[in-house]
Amino acid sequence: MSPEEEKVLDVNKNFYHALQTLNLEEMEAVWLQEEWVRCLHPGWDILEGWEAVRESWQQIFETTKFLRVSLGVQSVRVEKAMAWVCCTEKISSAAEGRFETTYVQTTNIFKLLNGDWYMVHHHSSHLPTPWNNPAAEVVQ
Amino acid sequence: MSPEEEKVLDVNKNFYHALQTLNLEEMEAVWLQEEWVRCLHPGWDILEGWEAVRESWQQIFETTKFLRVSLGVQSVRVEKAMAWVCCTEKISSAAEGRFETTYVQTTNIFKLLNGDWYMVHHHSSHLPTPWNNPAAEVVQ
Repeated sequence: MSPEEEKVLDVNKNFYHALQTLNLEEMEAVWLQEEWVRCLHPGWDILEGWEAVRESWQQIFETTKFLRVSLGVQSVRVEKAMAWVCCTEKISSAAEGRFETTYVQTTNIFKLLNGDWYMVHHHSSHLPTPWNNPAAEVVQ
Repeated sequence: MSPEEEKVLDVNKNFYHALQTLNLEEMEAVWLQEEWVRCLHPGWDILEGWEAVRESWQQIFETTKFLRVSLGVQSVRVEKAMAWVCCTEKISSAAEGRFETTYVQTTNIFKLLNGDWYMVHHHSSHLPTPWNNPAAEVVQ
């Protein structure tokens, strides 16, 4: 793996750490705060612009009591100052009295700016069935 | 809209034309045929490499009798030799005796090579409810 690919995966990891700890400040540090960044949460309308994206995370973090992420596949591609990562995740969460485990596929796009990588696009979608990953721990 | 953005949207349109006409040759012309391209069809495992991606389209085209796509939102961003498009689509299809209409959100990533844009990543996911687009035609 190239040093640049490792850097991208580090920021990708920071994103999931922010998500798991429901930490808005960490989430803010991951994103490029521009009006053209976009985010597609499962089942939501497309969000465009940092303000809308930030508000969505704030809303998700405020209504979520607990969240754990197990990352499966992480596939990265770097093209000069742009990069994208495909991930498969198992997300266990508790919100509004419900507890659920979902399997999610994600495309995260990053941009290199002044030597640092920032998220500029996040698209995650539910998988209808558990993903086939023998290495993953199964929570019953 | 910049000329480069228009070019990207033209290739994006070619992708949906190939999809709608179930035309594998047109689909082949849209993609960069590299081992690192990736494709996430709704509910499928992540496909990596042109061979796997091509086979998936072949399989989809062989088992689909009819497909119509209505494009809703199309939001494009160009960063030098990379670009990505967010789309919302309504897809009506007939396959194996079933007829269904689904609402889909998509992230398509493109790379500029020798003056032409090619698809290098396609991630589409079902929306659980009809998307809110008053301009869209409703098929009953």
